Amino acid sequence: VTGGPAPAGVGVLGATGYAGAELVRLLSGHPGARLAAAGSRSNAGRTMSRVFPSMPAAGLVLDDDPDRPEAWLDRGVQVVFTALPHGAFAPRARAWLDAGLRVIDLSADFRLRGAGEFLERHGVDHPDPGLLQRAVYGLTEWCGPEIDAAPLVANPGCYATAVLLGLLPAIHAGWGSSEPIIVNAISGVSGAGRSPSLSTHFAECDGSVAPYRVGEEHPHLAEILQAMGRVGESAPGPVIFNPHLAPMSRGILASMAFRLGRPVDSGRARELYAARYAGSPFVRVLDEGALPETRHVRGSNRCDLAVRTAAGGSVLMVFAAIDNLIKGAAGQAVQNFNRMMGWPEETALPLAGWSCA
Amino acid sequence: VTGGPAPAGVGVLGATGYAGAELVRLLSGHPGARLAAAGSRSNAGRTMSRVFPSMPAAGLVLDDDPDRPEAWLDRGVQVVFTALPHGAFAPRARAWLDAGLRVIDLSADFRLRGAGEFLERHGVDHPDPGLLQRAVYGLTEWCGPEIDAAPLVANPGCYATAVLLGLLPAIHAGWGSSEPIIVNAISGVSGAGRSPSLSTHFAECDGSVAPYRVGEEHPHLAEILQAMGRVGESAPGPVIFNPHLAPMSRGILASMAFRLGRPVDSGRARELYAARYAGSPFVRVLDEGALPETRHVRGSNRCDLAVRTAAGGSVLMVFAAIDNLIKGAAGQAVQNFNRMMGWPEETALPLAGWSCA
Amino acid sequence: VTGGPAPAGVGVLGATGYAGAELVRLLSGHPGARLAAAGSRSNAGRTMSRVFPSMPAAGLVLDDDPDRPEAWLDRGVQVVFTALPHGAFAPRARAWLDAGLRVIDLSADFRLRGAGEFLERHGVDHPDPGLLQRAVYGLTEWCGPEIDAAPLVANPGCYATAVLLGLLPAIHAGWGSSEPIIVNAISGVSGAGRSPSLSTHFAECDGSVAPYRVGEEHPHLAEILQAMGRVGESAPGPVIFNPHLAPMSRGILASMAFRLGRPVDSGRARELYAARYAGSPFVRVLDEGALPETRHVRGSNRCDLAVRTAAGGSVLMVFAAIDNLIKGAAGQAVQNFNRMMGWPEETALPLAGWSCA
Amino acid sequence: VTGGPAPAGVGVLGATGYAGAELVRLLSGHPGARLAAAGSRSNAGRTMSRVFPSMPAAGLVLDDDPDRPEAWLDRGVQVVFTALPHGAFAPRARAWLDAGLRVIDLSADFRLRGAGEFLERHGVDHPDPGLLQRAVYGLTEWCGPEIDAAPLVANPGCYATAVLLGLLPAIHAGWGSSEPIIVNAISGVSGAGRSPSLSTHFAECDGSVAPYRVGEEHPHLAEILQAMGRVGESAPGPVIFNPHLAPMSRGILASMAFRLGRPVDSGRARELYAARYAGSPFVRVLDEGALPETRHVRGSNRCDLAVRTAAGGSVLMVFAAIDNLIKGAAGQAVQNFNRMMGWPEETALPLAGWSCA
Repeated sequence: VTGGPAPAGVGVLGATGYAGAELVRLLSGHPGARLAAAGSRSNAGRTMSRVFPSMPAAGLVLDDDPDRPEAWLDRGVQVVFTALPHGAFAPRARAWLDAGLRVIDLSADFRLRGAGEFLERHGVDHPDPGLLQRAVYGLTEWCGPEIDAAPLVANPGCYATAVLLGLLPAIHAGWGSSEPIIVNAISGVSGAGRSPSLSTHFAECDGSVAPYRVGEEHPHLAEILQAMGRVGESAPGPVIFNPHLAPMSRGILASMAFRLGRPVDSGRARELYAARYAGSPFVRVLDEGALPETRHVRGSNRCDLAVRTAAGGSVLMVFAAIDNLIKGAAGQAVQNFNRMMGWPEETALPLAGWSCA
Repeated sequence: VTGGPAPAGVGVLGATGYAGAELVRLLSGHPGARLAAAGSRSNAGRTMSRVFPSMPAAGLVLDDDPDRPEAWLDRGVQVVFTALPHGAFAPRARAWLDAGLRVIDLSADFRLRGAGEFLERHGVDHPDPGLLQRAVYGLTEWCGPEIDAAPLVANPGCYATAVLLGLLPAIHAGWGSSEPIIVNAISGVSGAGRSPSLSTHFAECDGSVAPYRVGEEHPHLAEILQAMGRVGESAPGPVIFNPHLAPMSRGILASMAFRLGRPVDSGRARELYAARYAGSPFVRVLDEGALPETRHVRGSNRCDLAVRTAAGGSVLMVFAAIDNLIKGAAGQAVQNFNRMMGWPEETALPLAGWSCA
Repeated sequence: VTGGPAPAGVGVLGATGYAGAELVRLLSGHPGARLAAAGSRSNAGRTMSRVFPSMPAAGLVLDDDPDRPEAWLDRGVQVVFTALPHGAFAPRARAWLDAGLRVIDLSADFRLRGAGEFLERHGVDHPDPGLLQRAVYGLTEWCGPEIDAAPLVANPGCYATAVLLGLLPAIHAGWGSSEPIIVNAISGVSGAGRSPSLSTHFAECDGSVAPYRVGEEHPHLAEILQAMGRVGESAPGPVIFNPHLAPMSRGILASMAFRLGRPVDSGRARELYAARYAGSPFVRVLDEGALPETRHVRGSNRCDLAVRTAAGGSVLMVFAAIDNLIKGAAGQAVQNFNRMMGWPEETALPLAGWSCA
Repeated sequence: VTGGPAPAGVGVLGATGYAGAELVRLLSGHPGARLAAAGSRSNAGRTMSRVFPSMPAAGLVLDDDPDRPEAWLDRGVQVVFTALPHGAFAPRARAWLDAGLRVIDLSADFRLRGAGEFLERHGVDHPDPGLLQRAVYGLTEWCGPEIDAAPLVANPGCYATAVLLGLLPAIHAGWGSSEPIIVNAISGVSGAGRSPSLSTHFAECDGSVAPYRVGEEHPHLAEILQAMGRVGESAPGPVIFNPHLAPMSRGILASMAFRLGRPVDSGRARELYAARYAGSPFVRVLDEGALPETRHVRGSNRCDLAVRTAAGGSVLMVFAAIDNLIKGAAGQAVQNFNRMMGWPEETALPLAGWSCA
């Protein structure tokens, strides 16, 4: 890999969560990034390799997550990835943007466009509503051109990524009806983060599958509805979103089904999807009969999709699989970074997954 | 535990699959059963405890699965549980029934009532269609009285058990509409049986979730539709059934959603279900806000159910969890045995699950 | 099950940890126990079935763990099982014993006989050293007669149970040498308790095996050495104890090897063990060539043992498997309760494990 | 990555086992390798990406594993990696070598130097004993210079790699004694290959740990003894090798302990190891107090080692962790390829592992 723009100094806030650590790992192999700083409230003063012994070369000493960007600017940081708990970065964002830094935020802080929606969804006022309109939603395959010049990218949630890549082609084509769109999704436990809790305790999760925050409760639903509204010509039916936890660390499998406005056969549905994603290196529409499995995208930035119809062509079924920490978080963030910095979208992102877990 | 009818001699055909082994384990602790014979094509001549070292007291020597019942009658077998691969018992069933044995069959051989349906679903003619009408479907909570005197009980499939316990109260109440019923289900790998294959190889399943035979492909769908047709007043909409495999050994979690004919609030939905199952010791309708998890029914014969509505009461959501090898197979078979023999339905069946996997 | 002594009122302190919950589950099915009270600091005021939805019949309301026994005596408690964090019960023990209650303590508080050893091992003075001599070590197969009349039983640690059942026959026979005894043990994660921590976080444990507190660091080592010293004629060599964590919830597999004082062939070693445990319903010495697996003892109170020699008979190898929460905790406690109350040792304890996890 | 020798045409025999698939994945990203051919008996005629949907870019059509090299030479293959079942390549090896191809063999066919040892270990005569002396053992950190010019490299077994990297520094330093060396090792299930069997069936492995082929039975033991004999000045004591299977796909953790000839303190032991591996990019000797975990080497070509002494310095304890499919198979093969072709040893090999499984 030669040529390309000069390497940019990058920093990672919240480097010791799973998304943060994957960012450090991916950026360490990026020809266009020089990891100049990393922050972690809980591990300040330690090296990254101390916290993650899996990364022996990551000798960088972790800062406390700084409130202001000056020290990081001095170290040459030009782009900052923020992987903080939801709500932690929004109050500081303006300072970082005003200093000329470009920001790729992996939290939910800037994903909704309206302050009202934010209040309704999160129960508190947004700390800096004026920034919401400046943020570009970072679903690369649908928002790519807007991302190129964006100062602030709101990286999509992991569930939202899988669901939207699966639903948007049909919604964009106006295939929906007023009937409900039923979305079931199954996630690995790393999606709940790295802070210990009873619900992520090994002996509680092991050998068990469970739904949680079903129906209209999960925060990603607002993000899904907003993105659907932007591409669809008419209001789709209600979306029922049922997330489930499965006993694995990584991966999301989303299974979607809804009544079509008029019958479509499976071949035509596949064609629509294949055409829509023909230029997208990280979305693969599977051959007829094949179905996605999370192991096939493990460690990869890919989203695998299958689409077909049932009940005489009246119901569309879409299945999507991603690695929640890669395409659902750190990988998509790097994909957006690549667009922002003028690198080919695939740079430093794995296309192949592992042969086994 | 005293009183009760005299112990009956029982036999298990196909004792070394998972369902067969669970039958042996449960029947060994049953005051009304004396395990007189067990058969296994693949392990004939060995003791059960040699094949399953987990059962040190099971010194019974395994027969080759006999074609005719004479030898087992000589040993005092009165009731036979058949846990053979689908299609293996049907050609022999008449001989066993004619000999006066009562049969609880855990395969799909006698679950469908019509020979035409059987041909369509399984691609071969039923070997003895005249028996189909004599078989009673063994979904205990819905077919109990018919089971009491049945000579031949067709024990339901594991998926069908979870889905039907979840859907039937609403269908029976006429709450359905012509819109599709979307059923997603997640199963542990033991549901695929004990014969090794690439799809059940540890390193292929580990850390991965995958859909399979989705839409209208899975054989349990015919069984589900037939049972719905029997309780419902009008034809329900099409059923889309998407089974998934998760990296765990036991458990099924079914998540169901469909458009209601007219709006219902969550409280009323819960009441309907609670009333319907008030007398069923093994179905628990969870309190408002709670959701079932497969770990809570692990090792138990229970089905845990949650029911609520969404989208302004227009969509019913039902969640069901069972242990696929207990309530979904061996446990429900023993529950049917209890009814057939005049024992309390709960006899020798665990109500509590384990504190952890 | 008829006859037997009248049921005794029992209570469980620390009922919402894994060992406590397994105690509640096992005691609920015990003909000689009436669960009259249960305590839990973290869940006082809730029902047991609320905290463990797997136990729908456990409607008992949890007390705050009481400091004094009066209220529990009023409810008819005669025997109390304490499954509290180490150090929590010792300061209160005298009050409970003086009130005439018999105590089976599952913590490490009373396992060491000497106050000096306790100080050295735990770094603090024992709160009531006078009680140490009154406590009887509860390794049922070796200390049974002492347990029968004991007011206070110190239930062994899970690792110590597996290791001692495996080593004591050889040590007792004087087969040891002055060379080191190397013990490697692999435990499921439930052994670390139910309090969330990073080291028991699902995404940290999943797919990984790791040693911890190796060599001479683990607290169970003192307990192992003390018990070896009591049965052995001469001091054995140093014991190197290497515990490991594996990605499973339950089970301990201990693999032990050491130089024999003089050569022994495998057959003779097996005979020694088989003879020693001939009257022990819960210890099974496996046939030649077989090796224990934790899945075979899952859910059972058994310990499976294999013994053989290598290197020309000069090295003894012993392998032991238990379910850490049953034989390694709650099951052995009930086994001791059975002895103390005059019930057959097997009462209410499962001999068979499950056909699959 | 620029410069370096011109890319060599490479082929993989046995490309659809786990080691073969990892070879394809790693070689696809290697600047010095052009994957020109791949063979698979069981999947001939399919594309690699059909068999491993995780590799969407691997459009190479699989050959039947050819018996003779001509067709592959025509396609420009210069180096062939063989990942066939043990015994399958040895009879064909001479033809491939005589044709001028260099071979890196991942099977056990050429690991032992003596035809007599081979017969004793494998129970059959070696098909071409004259080649045994031409093969170079491929434990890179110990045999590197011999590997550089080797025509035929016998890539070490996965267990042997972990155990030898852990034991050889002490043996080489003459620290051993005549007392037994006790080696316990825990492996993920992928080490048993990709052919389905009952012992690798998900529901049999899940939630269980088990020893197998313990003591002196495992084939890797001969390989370990041979390598120890080559570096040690005097014969070490007997090696007791106890492999165990754990419920995870990848990883080996080896825990070794033995009596030292004379006492050594932990610091000096660490120094010896650190000095020995100072120039080895893929062996990391951990800081005092740290212990290796398989998750830290997951996906990496590293071996993490911890060394310390116990029992007053009289017992050496060594712990080693590798990813069995990378450093224990495909990664070490690529490391050897790098040496053979004049590339830096680290080329195309991951140093960092993943943040979580």
